[in-house]
Amino acid sequence: MTPTMLSVMEVIIALKQIPLFASVHGEGLKRLSDVIREKRVAEAEIVFAKTDLGEEMYLVYSGKILIYHELAGHDEPLEIIDPSGYFGEMAIIDEQPRSASARAQQDSTLLVLHRDDFRTAVLDYPDIAFAVFRGFSQRIRRADGRIRSLATELRRMHSEIES
Amino acid sequence: MTPTMLSVMEVIIALKQIPLFASVHGEGLKRLSDVIREKRVAEAEIVFAKTDLGEEMYLVYSGKILIYHELAGHDEPLEIIDPSGYFGEMAIIDEQPRSASARAQQDSTLLVLHRDDFRTAVLDYPDIAFAVFRGFSQRIRRADGRIRSLATELRRMHSEIES
Repeated sequence: MTPTMLSVMEVIIALKQIPLFASVHGEGLKRLSDVIREKRVAEAEIVFAKTDLGEEMYLVYSGKILIYHELAGHDEPLEIIDPSGYFGEMAIIDEQPRSASARAQQDSTLLVLHRDDFRTAVLDYPDIAFAVFRGFSQRIRRADGRIRSLATELRRMHSEIES
Repeated sequence: MTPTMLSVMEVIIALKQIPLFASVHGEGLKRLSDVIREKRVAEAEIVFAKTDLGEEMYLVYSGKILIYHELAGHDEPLEIIDPSGYFGEMAIIDEQPRSASARAQQDSTLLVLHRDDFRTAVLDYPDIAFAVFRGFSQRIRRADGRIRSLATELRRMHSEIES
């Protein structure tokens, strides 16, 4: 496979469509497109595995990425990231290993942003922070919902066994 | 009870000790102290309940606040917020109802920050954003851990019942 590289203009147009960067304009988009690297992954290819160290976050240009936990014997899907979505920001924020694994569900093109460039973008365009806040906050609400339903199910089973 | 109000200086000293505002100095701390409101809550008093609407976040000056879910018949504790910690930022970020309830575990003094003033602080001091990112990221990792252990326990019980 000899993939055609995206042009600067294509990257800029893609960045404009990513809600995370809705507050970034003209020169800022140009600067981001300068530091962004393109990465192609084939269907079923692993982008990163839980506990990997990583200094980069990923924007989905095309394709679909599955975020999942590997549990004993099966994968627990957490989220599917569609074009214009992003993932992998947690490890670059807290400098901890990846908290989950990421795998391509179809051939995908990713835009790769290094931690330092993400930091610079947030300092230059603090509105990006509010987009990141909202993303985290949605994820916490989803996780809380999952905890509530698992905890309720577990209590139900305990009381069935006891009765 | 006629509580003595905190002086501006006491509020500034408290803000300096809050990791969230580690990047804010002199004039910025003064500005924050101008817009912050003090709130005393007695032991067992509810600060807010899940599904409440709210436009304010809280910094703990003294005391202890329990964040919890009310499940059928029992409270599921999520987190205890100690002095210098903060809570209630999610609802002001995504403008959704409170995702959990908050109750004083002992008499506590809170510093109350309105959504608009929090926003101004982040725009003036974007480093605050990275402190918020880290807080969210810790919370997501904790939630993921809880989901993993609940899901594993549930599968164990299912396979015990089936065997």
